[in-house]
Amino acid sequence: MKLSVIKIGGDIIDDQEMLTRFISDFSRLQGHKILVHGGGKVATRTAQSLGIQTVMKDGRRITTDKMIDVVTMTYAGLINKKIVSYLQAKSINAIGLTGVDGNLILSDKRSAQNGIDYGWVGDPKKVNAELVRSLINSALTPVIAPITHDICGNLLNTNADTIASTLAIAMNRYYDVELNYCLQQRGVMEDVNQSDSMVKQLSYAAFDQGKKDGTISNGMIPKLDNAFEAVKKGVSKVRVMSHQSISKLEKSNFDEFTIIL
Amino acid sequence: MKLSVIKIGGDIIDDQEMLTRFISDFSRLQGHKILVHGGGKVATRTAQSLGIQTVMKDGRRITTDKMIDVVTMTYAGLINKKIVSYLQAKSINAIGLTGVDGNLILSDKRSAQNGIDYGWVGDPKKVNAELVRSLINSALTPVIAPITHDICGNLLNTNADTIASTLAIAMNRYYDVELNYCLQQRGVMEDVNQSDSMVKQLSYAAFDQGKKDGTISNGMIPKLDNAFEAVKKGVSKVRVMSHQSISKLEKSNFDEFTIIL
Repeated sequence: MKLSVIKIGGDIIDDQEMLTRFISDFSRLQGHKILVHGGGKVATRTAQSLGIQTVMKDGRRITTDKMIDVVTMTYAGLINKKIVSYLQAKSINAIGLTGVDGNLILSDKRSAQNGIDYGWVGDPKKVNAELVRSLINSALTPVIAPITHDICGNLLNTNADTIASTLAIAMNRYYDVELNYCLQQRGVMEDVNQSDSMVKQLSYAAFDQGKKDGTISNGMIPKLDNAFEAVKKGVSKVRVMSHQSISKLEKSNFDEFTIIL
Repeated sequence: MKLSVIKIGGDIIDDQEMLTRFISDFSRLQGHKILVHGGGKVATRTAQSLGIQTVMKDGRRITTDKMIDVVTMTYAGLINKKIVSYLQAKSINAIGLTGVDGNLILSDKRSAQNGIDYGWVGDPKKVNAELVRSLINSALTPVIAPITHDICGNLLNTNADTIASTLAIAMNRYYDVELNYCLQQRGVMEDVNQSDSMVKQLSYAAFDQGKKDGTISNGMIPKLDNAFEAVKKGVSKVRVMSHQSISKLEKSNFDEFTIIL
């Protein structure tokens, strides 16, 4: 049986019009589905309003004691419950969860690397796939916020792209999983300024080459690392696509997105 | 089979030492259980830090557009996920939910009463008891934050005492439900300054009399209204007790709490 794991990023969450359209398309998507969402700028804005400084190192957020409270409030609270309530209004019986709930995703707190301590950041190591399966089989649609835990009482800020691939891999033993990373652009672009430069299929060799010659941009690299990890671990369909293409997924329109090989 | 519905208020949540002790006692409580938590002062403090004014009318929070965001962040995000992570650390497989998740508690948005518009405030009307039962039967412990929804995409701030009694009543058809309201004081007191003035049993007639002659304080009245509502609807054991008495529940020590008749 098919299971679609859909990841949406902060750019979609930050734009009410895009989010409304996405919710509508997602609610019409047939079959079992899981939605994984990122955080967007709400956490940064909330932190700013609360007088908490956001410190980034190499594009990653340093998660201090105060910052884990802020991301938990915004990701697990505000964003997650809004999305769930919008889906409920579309007759989708969504259930909002973090990795803490039902011990869904257990993580290791990331150790300091090269002298950089990322703080309360987690790297997933174990999924309670049985729980996800039982919720899905009860006709529920899990909506996952990117917070996990270490089972010692600590919440951990966790990359949503990684959560999506980790879930896809874990669920692959029960379902025919499709993993879709949704963004604003159509797919992986050779030149982001040229809308006709979308890569239709991306092999690991081409990804590797793109990283070397700089045609694949920095921001896309961790996402594609997660995408290739899912392919490597047996997820048969992994795509990078526009959030607007969700409605076309059933038509298998291969010109609409980048397929990760 | 027994099901304990335990409600803790903001005073316990606001005090790390009390909360730690409560979590420890709650985790040792035998049998099926549900924890319902209130909000405490975190929402007011967060609102203040964000420059959002808290307006109270007759002891109730007016929930504006901005305030529903704040209470969703703090109740469903920060407080709920912290409690769940603490319970996970005690080997309790807790799952944090709001009334939105899995359409757990559907509410009516409260209409303006006597010229007062309370804003995004909900009065529960329907519980998805099947979902709660299925989670409990999967050895999960639901931890419920006081946010519900109207199924039209709106989140609603909802009284946690009411959520506790609504859940107790709804689950009473499947389990032998015990509803316990935990507070800092030992139970219903005739004189809050006299620790030996605890009322051991409170009948509706005595409650009614207490309201009239002013021996039952204002703050306790809505809580007891909810408690008596549960008794009226068939919940056989309803108690008002100290959060410290949780550990003594199994011993049925009748001197430890007020039994609502």
